[in-house]
Amino acid sequence: MNSELVEKVRRQNPLVHNITNIVVANDSANGLLAIGASPFMSNSFDEMGDVTQLADAIVLNIGTLDASQITTMKEVGRIGNQLNKPIVFDPVGAGATAYRKQVTEELLNEVKFALIKGNAGEIAAIANADWEAKGVDAGNGTGDIAEIAKQVAKRYQCLVGVSGAEDIITDGVQVIRVRNGTDYFPKMTGSGCLLSCICGAFLGVVDSVTDLTAVATAFTMYGLAGELAADKLPECLVGSFRMNLLDELSVMTGEKLFEKGRIYYDISEN
Amino acid sequence: MNSELVEKVRRQNPLVHNITNIVVANDSANGLLAIGASPFMSNSFDEMGDVTQLADAIVLNIGTLDASQITTMKEVGRIGNQLNKPIVFDPVGAGATAYRKQVTEELLNEVKFALIKGNAGEIAAIANADWEAKGVDAGNGTGDIAEIAKQVAKRYQCLVGVSGAEDIITDGVQVIRVRNGTDYFPKMTGSGCLLSCICGAFLGVVDSVTDLTAVATAFTMYGLAGELAADKLPECLVGSFRMNLLDELSVMTGEKLFEKGRIYYDISEN
Amino acid sequence: MNSELVEKVRRQNPLVHNITNIVVANDSANGLLAIGASPFMSNSFDEMGDVTQLADAIVLNIGTLDASQITTMKEVGRIGNQLNKPIVFDPVGAGATAYRKQVTEELLNEVKFALIKGNAGEIAAIANADWEAKGVDAGNGTGDIAEIAKQVAKRYQCLVGVSGAEDIITDGVQVIRVRNGTDYFPKMTGSGCLLSCICGAFLGVVDSVTDLTAVATAFTMYGLAGELAADKLPECLVGSFRMNLLDELSVMTGEKLFEKGRIYYDISEN
Repeated sequence: MNSELVEKVRRQNPLVHNITNIVVANDSANGLLAIGASPFMSNSFDEMGDVTQLADAIVLNIGTLDASQITTMKEVGRIGNQLNKPIVFDPVGAGATAYRKQVTEELLNEVKFALIKGNAGEIAAIANADWEAKGVDAGNGTGDIAEIAKQVAKRYQCLVGVSGAEDIITDGVQVIRVRNGTDYFPKMTGSGCLLSCICGAFLGVVDSVTDLTAVATAFTMYGLAGELAADKLPECLVGSFRMNLLDELSVMTGEKLFEKGRIYYDISEN
Repeated sequence: MNSELVEKVRRQNPLVHNITNIVVANDSANGLLAIGASPFMSNSFDEMGDVTQLADAIVLNIGTLDASQITTMKEVGRIGNQLNKPIVFDPVGAGATAYRKQVTEELLNEVKFALIKGNAGEIAAIANADWEAKGVDAGNGTGDIAEIAKQVAKRYQCLVGVSGAEDIITDGVQVIRVRNGTDYFPKMTGSGCLLSCICGAFLGVVDSVTDLTAVATAFTMYGLAGELAADKLPECLVGSFRMNLLDELSVMTGEKLFEKGRIYYDISEN
Repeated sequence: MNSELVEKVRRQNPLVHNITNIVVANDSANGLLAIGASPFMSNSFDEMGDVTQLADAIVLNIGTLDASQITTMKEVGRIGNQLNKPIVFDPVGAGATAYRKQVTEELLNEVKFALIKGNAGEIAAIANADWEAKGVDAGNGTGDIAEIAKQVAKRYQCLVGVSGAEDIITDGVQVIRVRNGTDYFPKMTGSGCLLSCICGAFLGVVDSVTDLTAVATAFTMYGLAGELAADKLPECLVGSFRMNLLDELSVMTGEKLFEKGRIYYDISEN
C-alpha cells in the first residue's frame, strides 16, 4: 500500500472518463470529486478521441448497456490503448445474462484493460468458474476466488480486483487481501461501480498502468471509508450510509489510511 | 394487510427487474435494497429473455421514454406474461402528453399487468376521466378516484393502486384505503416510482400475481416509512427527507407496520 | 434583485422542462421541487410539442449528449421560440471537446436562448476566448470574464450567467456580480446544472424572457443556499453538503434572500 497516493490524487486531480450506467452515474461522479479527482461522463462516440486524450484514466461499466454504448466503449478502448491510458473494466452482472457475458468477452478480446474489477460472481463468470451469481449481486460459489482471480489476471495480462467481505487484488502472481470494508456496501447500489472509478483515479496518477500497489491502495481507502461511514450508524440505515460514505471519502487522508488500513500480502507461491 | 410480508421480502430477497427512467433509477435501486429486495436495471432488448426468467417481478416505468425502450418493454411484457411473472406498470405522466397516453394504451393492450400504479392524474388519464394533471404531478379533478380506479381495474382485469393523500388500492371490487403517508412525497422526485418498485417486490414473494393484500401492504409500509421519515424533521427539508425515507425503509419491520399501519376496507357494494 | 420572486415561484409552481444528462437528472428534479417548481424530464421527440406547450420554461443541458438528444433539443428550441417560452442553455463542457463546441454552436445558431448559463471555461469557449477548461470544470484563464460574458450576451442577444467564486450576470450592457456561494459547489456534480434549472424556474414566472433581475435573483438565491448549506458543516463533507443544499433550497424565503444576498451592480460604461 502507498498511502501517500491519497494526497497525490488530490494534488494531481486526475480526469477520469466514465462510460457508465444510469443508476450510478451521479454517485460515481460525486465520489470522484470527493477524493479530489475530476469526473467526465460521456457516451458520445464523436468526442471519444478528445475525451480519451484528455483523460488520465478510463472506466468502462456495463451496468445498463445499449448497442451504441458498446461501440463507444470499443472506440475509447482502441484509442486509450494506443495512448497507453489505464482502462478499468467493471463487468457489472457478467454472470447474470448470456448477453452480458458475450459483451464482456467481446470487450476483453478487443480492449487491453489495466484492471478488471468485479464482485466474485462477475470475475467467476469471466473465468467460466462454477459460481451462482444473483443478478448484479455477487451470489455464492465454492471455488477459491483468489485462484480464479489469478487465472483471469494471467489470461488477460492485467490486474484483477475482486470486491467482497475480503477484497482480493492480484496481478496473476502476487495476491493482496484487503480486510477493510462493511456489510453496508452490498446494500448501496453502485458501491462497486464507485470503487472501479476510484481505482481509475489512482491508476491515473502513477507511472505504470498496471501498478498493483495503486489498486490495492484504492481498495483499502474505499474499504476504510465505508467502514468509517458505517461506524457512525447505530443500525443499518442505507440512506445515511450513502451520505456518510461520500463524506468519509472527502476527508480521507493518507495518515488515516496508514493507521487503519488492513492489507495483507499472500506469500507468493509461483 | 399482511405485515409478515415485510420479513418475507427480506428473507426471499426477490429480484425485481426495472425498466425505468434516468431521473429515479438510483433511488429506486437503493429503495429496493433497503427493503431487502435485489434490483436489476436493464433496457437491453437482447437480455430480456434471461432477465425476465431470473426476475421475481418486473416494473415498467415510462418516465423518460424512447422508442427502443418501448420495444424492450413490450418484449419483457410478452415473456413475463408467458412465465406468469407479476408485472407492475407505472404510467408516469400518462395525463401530460398525447404521446405518453398513446404509449400507455399500447402497453395496456399488449401486456397483461398485475398492477397499474399511478397518481390520480395518471389513473384518470387511463380511464379517460375528467382530470387536470400537471406534468408528471397528480393535479386536480372532480371525479371519485376510487370509482375511477375500480373501472380501470375491471377493464384491464388487474389491480390498481392510486397514490395520494389517501391511497386507493382495488381489484375492481374491493377498495382498500391507506392513510399513512406524508406531504413530503410529492416533494421528492421518484417517490411514486419507488412505491411501484416496492409493490413489485411484494408481488414477487406471494403466490398470486394479483394479490390485493400484498399491494395494500406495500402501500402501507411505504406510506408509514414516509411518515416516520417526515416526523424526524422540524420543517420541510427535502434533502433530509429523501435520506430518512431510505433509512426508514431499511429498518422497517412487520411489527411497526402492524402497530402503525392505517388501512381501511370499504364495505363492498357489488 | 427581486427577493419576492422566491415566493412567486412557490405560488405559481412553474413547470420547467429539462432535457438533461444522466448524471444530474435526479438532483435537478429534486432541486426544482425544493424551490416550489415542477420538473418535467423528457427526451422524447414525439412529445416535445405537448411538453413545450405545457412548460413555463425550458432548460437544455448537453452534459451527456447523443445524436437523438440534439435533434430533440432543436425541436424543443424551435417550438419554444415560436411560443416565446424562456429557454436556458447550459453548455456543459463546451470547452472540453471539439464535438461539444460544435453542438454548442449549432444550438446557438438555431435556437434563440433567453439565457446562456455556464462556468468560465464554457462561456469562454463560446466566445473563443483564451481559457483552459478542464473537462467539465471551469479551469483557468486570464481574460476578464465579465467582458467575455458581455460579448457573448451581445452576440446572441440574450442574458449570460457565469457561475464562479464571483458570479457574473449580464445582458451585454449591465453587469451584476453575486458574491454569495461556497467552495463546495465545484465539489458537487451537477451543482451548475441545478442553477440553470433554477434560473429557468425564475424566468418562468416573469413577463420578459430576458429579465435580468430574475436571473440575478436566481443566482443569488442559489449561492445563498449553498452558503447556508456549507455553514452547517465543520469540514468539507460533500455527501452532507448535497443534502443540506436541497434542504436550504426548500426553506429559502425572500426575507432571507433580502437580508443575506450580496449582489453588486457595475457602474455601466456603455
